[in-house]
Amino acid sequence: MAKYTLGIDFGSLSGRAVLVDVKDGREVASVVMDYPHAVMDRELCDYGIRLPADFALQHPQDYLDVLAYVIPNTLREGGVDKKDVIGVCIDFTTCTVLPVKKDLTPLCFSPEFEKNPHAYVKLWKHHAAQPYADRYTARAEERKEPWLPRFGGKISSEWLFPKIWETLDKAPEVYDAADAIIDAADWMTAMLTGKITRSYPFAAYKGEYVEADGGWPSEDFLGSLDARLRTVVKDKLYGRIVYVGEKVGEVTKEAAERFGLCEGTAVACPVPDAHVAATGMKQLQAGDMFGILGTSACYMLIDKVDVIVPGTCGTVKDGLTPGFYGYESGLCCMGDHFAWLCNNAVTPAYVKEAEEKGLPMIRLLCEKAAKQKPGAHGLIALNWWNGNRNILVDSALSGMFVGMNLSTKPEDMLRALIEATAYGTRTIIENYRRHGVEVKSFKAGGGIARKDPFTMQIFADVLKMDIAVAESKQIPAMSSGIYAAIAAGESAGGYADFATAAEAMGSPVHTVYKPNPEASAVYDQLYAEYMTLHDYFGRGGNNVMKKLRAIREAQEG
Amino acid sequence: MAKYTLGIDFGSLSGRAVLVDVKDGREVASVVMDYPHAVMDRELCDYGIRLPADFALQHPQDYLDVLAYVIPNTLREGGVDKKDVIGVCIDFTTCTVLPVKKDLTPLCFSPEFEKNPHAYVKLWKHHAAQPYADRYTARAEERKEPWLPRFGGKISSEWLFPKIWETLDKAPEVYDAADAIIDAADWMTAMLTGKITRSYPFAAYKGEYVEADGGWPSEDFLGSLDARLRTVVKDKLYGRIVYVGEKVGEVTKEAAERFGLCEGTAVACPVPDAHVAATGMKQLQAGDMFGILGTSACYMLIDKVDVIVPGTCGTVKDGLTPGFYGYESGLCCMGDHFAWLCNNAVTPAYVKEAEEKGLPMIRLLCEKAAKQKPGAHGLIALNWWNGNRNILVDSALSGMFVGMNLSTKPEDMLRALIEATAYGTRTIIENYRRHGVEVKSFKAGGGIARKDPFTMQIFADVLKMDIAVAESKQIPAMSSGIYAAIAAGESAGGYADFATAAEAMGSPVHTVYKPNPEASAVYDQLYAEYMTLHDYFGRGGNNVMKKLRAIREAQEG
Repeated sequence: MAKYTLGIDFGSLSGRAVLVDVKDGREVASVVMDYPHAVMDRELCDYGIRLPADFALQHPQDYLDVLAYVIPNTLREGGVDKKDVIGVCIDFTTCTVLPVKKDLTPLCFSPEFEKNPHAYVKLWKHHAAQPYADRYTARAEERKEPWLPRFGGKISSEWLFPKIWETLDKAPEVYDAADAIIDAADWMTAMLTGKITRSYPFAAYKGEYVEADGGWPSEDFLGSLDARLRTVVKDKLYGRIVYVGEKVGEVTKEAAERFGLCEGTAVACPVPDAHVAATGMKQLQAGDMFGILGTSACYMLIDKVDVIVPGTCGTVKDGLTPGFYGYESGLCCMGDHFAWLCNNAVTPAYVKEAEEKGLPMIRLLCEKAAKQKPGAHGLIALNWWNGNRNILVDSALSGMFVGMNLSTKPEDMLRALIEATAYGTRTIIENYRRHGVEVKSFKAGGGIARKDPFTMQIFADVLKMDIAVAESKQIPAMSSGIYAAIAAGESAGGYADFATAAEAMGSPVHTVYKPNPEASAVYDQLYAEYMTLHDYFGRGGNNVMKKLRAIREAQEG
Repeated sequence: MAKYTLGIDFGSLSGRAVLVDVKDGREVASVVMDYPHAVMDRELCDYGIRLPADFALQHPQDYLDVLAYVIPNTLREGGVDKKDVIGVCIDFTTCTVLPVKKDLTPLCFSPEFEKNPHAYVKLWKHHAAQPYADRYTARAEERKEPWLPRFGGKISSEWLFPKIWETLDKAPEVYDAADAIIDAADWMTAMLTGKITRSYPFAAYKGEYVEADGGWPSEDFLGSLDARLRTVVKDKLYGRIVYVGEKVGEVTKEAAERFGLCEGTAVACPVPDAHVAATGMKQLQAGDMFGILGTSACYMLIDKVDVIVPGTCGTVKDGLTPGFYGYESGLCCMGDHFAWLCNNAVTPAYVKEAEEKGLPMIRLLCEKAAKQKPGAHGLIALNWWNGNRNILVDSALSGMFVGMNLSTKPEDMLRALIEATAYGTRTIIENYRRHGVEVKSFKAGGGIARKDPFTMQIFADVLKMDIAVAESKQIPAMSSGIYAAIAAGESAGGYADFATAAEAMGSPVHTVYKPNPEASAVYDQLYAEYMTLHDYFGRGGNNVMKKLRAIREAQEG
């Protein structure tokens, strides 16, 4: 009798379930549902309450509605009985966090707090905690907190403690009323199991939880920020730390009825959506890197060595594949660049041409750009339209084009932007190598990897590495299905360990892009120019980007 | 009885006549005609002969056809009898040059040469003489020719001697068969008067003719380039030098019949089309600068002092207004930037919006950009899409944008480009001032000056000067009409001198744009950033623009 797992992927705008065949990882069925409230960044939808700048909230009811919709519908679509589902695993954006009561009810469900923005889910891209992040980093520097260098030397406003601190400071009534503050991933998992656990990779990568240093940041440090924060871990972050691949509990009777599962089904430790693909991409050897290439790009690397690599997001023991140190880095803007170009820098004639041919603009421009030789457009871009996550870790940087002339066309600029994201990726890889971390292989998944051979060939040529693109089009949810099979265990028809599960269920390779030495030789020249500009604009040679931002903010103010 | 003159303006794509009332400069009638062969830059139209790269030729028959069409039709439109036309003056692009026989017949009219590209008119933007220009400059540097610094230290491929040398070297049969090589302006003037004269401003600004140094470059110098060039002045450039405002002859019987004029009508010394506006703009005082703002921008300045100003195009005694030194400089790309943006960097939604509103894209974008405060877009551009004419004098430079983010819109980029042309203009003005040449007033004419108040206000704010925009929409042709009235003289109903004619006939001011001190304060900050980037990319701090060009040329090869 075939056995199945459910991987459930909560993204920024929708949630999806994928039903996975435990034998070979085949994706049997999949259903997606948009969040009814989407991202609330201008107002609290149900009440028309205007939100301050840089807010990005979600409604926790949406996650519950998604779960209740996608699970039974995926099973129906796949023609699979819930009895044959041996495990469930959730992956989620991060750090996406909410305050709840002891019984797991979100604070925003109560009449007392339903109009208080701080009682809702703060989505990963909620950036209003920036002042708290700045003070958090500054204090950690002063005190030489041991974990700071491990996380790139700078704590982001997107992470856990700045968001909690913001709530405490701006809405102490919410902070006080909350019995727990919890990652949405852990909350959804608790809605299945009935008890709060804390997923290690979320705690580690976004909450500076370092086992070797005693776990969470110390009470001394937290108390030095604000006396009320001293006991925040004990008060609000309680719950057992659980690990990737671990079974954290079983589906309760109540959850089984509510979400259409069987009571007792194994529930796996949830995984960050950027990290989850480690199994689906068969990341099993030191030096294996994979990239999930979409609106942004996330790069995950494992190695046996524990090295502090400046300018990356974080190094966490067992953070990706157990038995390895997991290194995270990324480009905070990839496909968003290309979408920007298609929406803001095209010719009127191309708008007509795309309509006539029924092609999306990006496809039309890629077709035109693919006819060029490397360097023939005469341009270089700095891919910082949304700042630089790595290796400069500076959100105040901005984008640049140089080399324009009167013949420059949109496809030239698009190609330059694609190349710039490849150069940015090369800076990350070279930075690892310079610090003694190996990068031996590169696999790619995500929308761009599967849909855009032109971009993938440029990546191969610029990185001078083979790029193996995964077959699966739903790498995160499918990979969650693998973790669910590990959590279910061999006796239930799942797997005993990571390697066996990944080998059996991980995505096969769809295409391997091989570097073209002639193109690589030209890209080596262009990369040298890119690096000169990267250091000039990014390392203080000319702070014009920051000065322009300051002038802009003063004038907009 | 009212008296009239005809100003005839030969542009890059068309020629126009304007009938001007001598009393007050009123533009009575105007007729324009496109050149049937336009610009031949791919093939010799009539024979389908493919042209080498960088060629830009015209057909001299087109100029004759224009003259024969626009003169009688302008008179008819104005309801004016040709007997009441007291003078004619031609202005022309420069340096636009052709080989002719002694009887003024262009060489390309003969069956022997009709298929030889070098026998046609080499238009100002014919750039195939670049290797000759480079060698010409290098030799002048070696020999420390006294005139070289006066012309910015670099002789352009667009100028007279590089073009002649190219003909001699590539088509010696054309060189040998030509009795004269002549500016199209002088040739058209000779077609009216029956005899070859050489207009001083053409000879001076584009042929390094410096009276104080003995006129044309020396036989020694010219012979050092190529022995056959030693006597080129005597052999091919004969003809009396004539001066701005001078009557150079009278319309012959034959020309009168051919072009619809009266025999004996005064013909004025022709004037370069970039310079001609000196009278129409009433440029009469030291420190008066005017700009003709169109696809490119030309800035003309007069002063009593003779200063070598590095990085400008040339300083010529009596070259603009008699009694002054005339300084020329400019931006080789102005409106072309804005056209590039409208054609290459707009949103699909704006294409629809412009269509629905029936607005040209440039107007739609200016409307949107005008709503912003200075600096609110967060961008700086370097306005070098077509290289830099002044003050860097480097055609290998290219364009740049910095400061982009995911919210950057086309109107932001347009505004940054407009501002960059204003910053480029400020570099020119500050360069003059630094070298002791006064810039006291700034008047503007040309398409952009009259049609685009948004751009003019930015110029006023950036330059921190009043910008007085001329009423006339046809400044070049109208100004030629004033020179014609001076050439005709007081006795014929014209004027005795420059000042009287300019005061009576020169264009009134349409609008004065006054700097807004708040905006100027922001632009001062942005200009400082512009200059840092200008020097970094333009003065060798980073030669990436040249390297990108070299890679492009190798890859396009």
